[in-house]
Amino acid sequence: MGRSGAGYRTIKVDERDNVAIVVHSGGLRSGDLLDNGITLVDDVPQGHKVALHHLPADAPILRYGEVIGRAANDIARGQWVHEGLVNIPEPPPLAEIPLTVHPAMPVDPLEGYGFEGFRNPDGSVGTRNILGICTSVQCVAGVANHVVRRIRQELLPDFPHVDDVVVLNHSYGCGVAIDAPAAIIPIRTLQNLARNPNLGNEVLVLGLGCEKLDPRRLVQDIAKETILELQDEAFHGFQGMVDGILELAGRKLARLNQRCRETCPASELVVGLQCGGSDAFSGVTANPAVGFAADLIVRAGGTVMFSEVTEVRDGIQLLVPRAADAGIGKALLREMAWYDRYLELGEVDRSANTTPGNKQGGLANIVEKSLGSIVKSGSSPIVEVLGPGERVSKKGLVFAATPASDFICGTLQLAAGINLQVFTTGRGTPYGLAMAPVLKVSSRSDLSQRWHDLIDLDAGRIASGDASIAEVGWDLFRMILDVASGRRQVAADRLGLHNDLVLFNPGPVT
Amino acid sequence: MGRSGAGYRTIKVDERDNVAIVVHSGGLRSGDLLDNGITLVDDVPQGHKVALHHLPADAPILRYGEVIGRAANDIARGQWVHEGLVNIPEPPPLAEIPLTVHPAMPVDPLEGYGFEGFRNPDGSVGTRNILGICTSVQCVAGVANHVVRRIRQELLPDFPHVDDVVVLNHSYGCGVAIDAPAAIIPIRTLQNLARNPNLGNEVLVLGLGCEKLDPRRLVQDIAKETILELQDEAFHGFQGMVDGILELAGRKLARLNQRCRETCPASELVVGLQCGGSDAFSGVTANPAVGFAADLIVRAGGTVMFSEVTEVRDGIQLLVPRAADAGIGKALLREMAWYDRYLELGEVDRSANTTPGNKQGGLANIVEKSLGSIVKSGSSPIVEVLGPGERVSKKGLVFAATPASDFICGTLQLAAGINLQVFTTGRGTPYGLAMAPVLKVSSRSDLSQRWHDLIDLDAGRIASGDASIAEVGWDLFRMILDVASGRRQVAADRLGLHNDLVLFNPGPVT
Repeated sequence: MGRSGAGYRTIKVDERDNVAIVVHSGGLRSGDLLDNGITLVDDVPQGHKVALHHLPADAPILRYGEVIGRAANDIARGQWVHEGLVNIPEPPPLAEIPLTVHPAMPVDPLEGYGFEGFRNPDGSVGTRNILGICTSVQCVAGVANHVVRRIRQELLPDFPHVDDVVVLNHSYGCGVAIDAPAAIIPIRTLQNLARNPNLGNEVLVLGLGCEKLDPRRLVQDIAKETILELQDEAFHGFQGMVDGILELAGRKLARLNQRCRETCPASELVVGLQCGGSDAFSGVTANPAVGFAADLIVRAGGTVMFSEVTEVRDGIQLLVPRAADAGIGKALLREMAWYDRYLELGEVDRSANTTPGNKQGGLANIVEKSLGSIVKSGSSPIVEVLGPGERVSKKGLVFAATPASDFICGTLQLAAGINLQVFTTGRGTPYGLAMAPVLKVSSRSDLSQRWHDLIDLDAGRIASGDASIAEVGWDLFRMILDVASGRRQVAADRLGLHNDLVLFNPGPVT
Repeated sequence: MGRSGAGYRTIKVDERDNVAIVVHSGGLRSGDLLDNGITLVDDVPQGHKVALHHLPADAPILRYGEVIGRAANDIARGQWVHEGLVNIPEPPPLAEIPLTVHPAMPVDPLEGYGFEGFRNPDGSVGTRNILGICTSVQCVAGVANHVVRRIRQELLPDFPHVDDVVVLNHSYGCGVAIDAPAAIIPIRTLQNLARNPNLGNEVLVLGLGCEKLDPRRLVQDIAKETILELQDEAFHGFQGMVDGILELAGRKLARLNQRCRETCPASELVVGLQCGGSDAFSGVTANPAVGFAADLIVRAGGTVMFSEVTEVRDGIQLLVPRAADAGIGKALLREMAWYDRYLELGEVDRSANTTPGNKQGGLANIVEKSLGSIVKSGSSPIVEVLGPGERVSKKGLVFAATPASDFICGTLQLAAGINLQVFTTGRGTPYGLAMAPVLKVSSRSDLSQRWHDLIDLDAGRIASGDASIAEVGWDLFRMILDVASGRRQVAADRLGLHNDLVLFNPGPVT
């Protein structure tokens, strides 16, 4: 006997799907009646899949209209389609994906939306006005952290138009094979982090003096007076270093403090998209709403960046046709191939993605996770592909090839030039970035209720039927403009929760 | 004409050497007369080498009695033997190194030395009494940092016998290929960090809940009440998490606070040795003095750990004969071979070590750097070889195979179980570790004068002839006992200068 007369709510994404996911918080039990008339023959946890038909062994299991795997055994109608019943398919062979480009749909421009941003000398626009202290090597981290505390306490109160001071500590710069072919990735990442729009083209660079990564390489186009090295003979001890840094920081702060927010069109937005701690709802609530907002930003002339190679690899056959031209399609395949090879060298494959939490959340494998992840990108044509650590140069939808690790992806998107990030989560994470506001969207309402002070927007309303994808997408778009304007503070910034910068260094350490 | 009638001081380490280094601060000029009767035919910077004889092209260049390279051209007596004149030799082929073990010299026991330490339930001894907050994933770093600030301000004042609270943030735990063969290294590193003697077997573990690295794996032998996960449904939002962590931290602090320092024999010392920012003096002043102190610790029954594979690789033929048995010699060769292969996969070789600062400091290449680095290990037999992240199990001189990166080596030595570290530097670095005191020894007096508040001990007195290696070695040994006893604070701790933990993860990220 079912516990609900009307039948418990399920979500089927595509007409072709032969599984649907269970919405009810806490899951359902064997005998429960679903809204599609099926009676469960298993207990099914929330977010997990139930078979809509009898699926003979080896039958394709379809979600998002795509094959997410094949039935390991006979599966009965109403049975729980758990991870053990889904044999993961081979990844799409890159050589067989046609480079046929579908003509980009004419974009219906969205006009009249803007935000209050900080215009930078290089033409980019910041959503924050931050003094960035870039470092060329981890050796200086202790001194840099000391100085940041002192600047916050002693200097910042005198510069009310400056939002914050942030030190860009990292583990690179020395003790690394700086001439390895792969070293180009961490080095350009650090160079491009210094150019992030939220740092106002006014960073202070702190080096040691004997490190492999010359601090001058970080800011080739910025005045030399930007760089201090602790081994400089002019500094007499720790106190001398601190005095010297505070003095230069004061001059930088004075320049940053002259800037004011001014009205900028939404086309100046560069919004990074990421997900972390995903569950089966991510692909039907949070990520579709983000995809809707992504389309709005692109229609307004702005830039949207999605990433995470291992989370698009299994849906790459859906992305290549969306490339604006064949060269971009090729670049997508090139980045996939690079990562296939990188994983192979480490003796793993793309199934190294998916976490225990993903699986508990109902995602059977990386194919199902990928299909739900790609939805974030909306429907716009892909106009640019960036290698890890490269800086964006086009407006529109951009793919930045990064690992899926939240911190590495976040760091690489900051290097690519985002001025704001949208982060979707199903299981929940207190993730935040010091250099750019991170707007966190939950895929489930029970998470946003329990984490009421950590989640910025609840997309779980879509699963319960209380809001449409378009409604939540518009809410998100407006919230992005408010956050970009400094009118609204995201939870992570309000609570001061910021994660470390983590560089992607595929090269060896020494 | 020379500027010094008596001849400027030079240092020749071994009778066989055909080069010597210039001691004079600021360097010497062409025409200057040396104490060995040679007149310089070039300007020679401080710490750099001068030819003691005519060296025909391809002649071996000898320092420490070993070949550091071959003359690229004819080199005249009195000429500056700069980097460009030294062709680097091939590394010693591992297969050709004989596993002949030289009988260990009978150790003359050193008795009557001890320190005031904290005895731990597992038998180890801490030099500090720290509440460690271990983390299973970077996701929790923001919350962990917040909680540490609160504990310092609100709880620590009530627990006067607890020295500090330290959070072990890192970039591992998720977004990584956790089943890659190489994953064993970061995982056992984190497991062994939790067991470091300075954390009193009383850590608090903070996890997220959906990460790949289950926090329970970090503390398999410690009570379950040690672990909190932010996704736990018992936590209502950020405030709930913070309250829960503070409550558990209070109970842990109460237990740690019951401990007092007690007199322990010097045999309970586990001292890590490292160098960073080395110069040509490192191998004749600081490192020999450290080697002398290392021998004293071993004679007192304690443990000394040296590391940095790329800095012993080119002197491995000198270390294998010092192995206590052939199995240990084999283990040394195994770790060298592993690293050769690791560098090869990244398309570099061991010359990726040596920094611009090393070279400015007079070190022509990794061979010369290695020979000066190995001196730190003193003359004791090597009784154990640890793979990266493994924990020490023997007393005596131990080789822990680690990269030379200061932060990775420091992190791996902490995992291996050091309760104190000695760090030598020529160029200067403000390096420090939060989990263990780092005693910094400078190779040059002008550095320790300029960095008067950052350097703990000046070994430059050896170069100037003002002190012998034995005198500085004894000073260091006594200083180690004082620091281990909490009677003396090292510069890094006094100033609060601590670097990040940096894990060695040779496996891929996802």
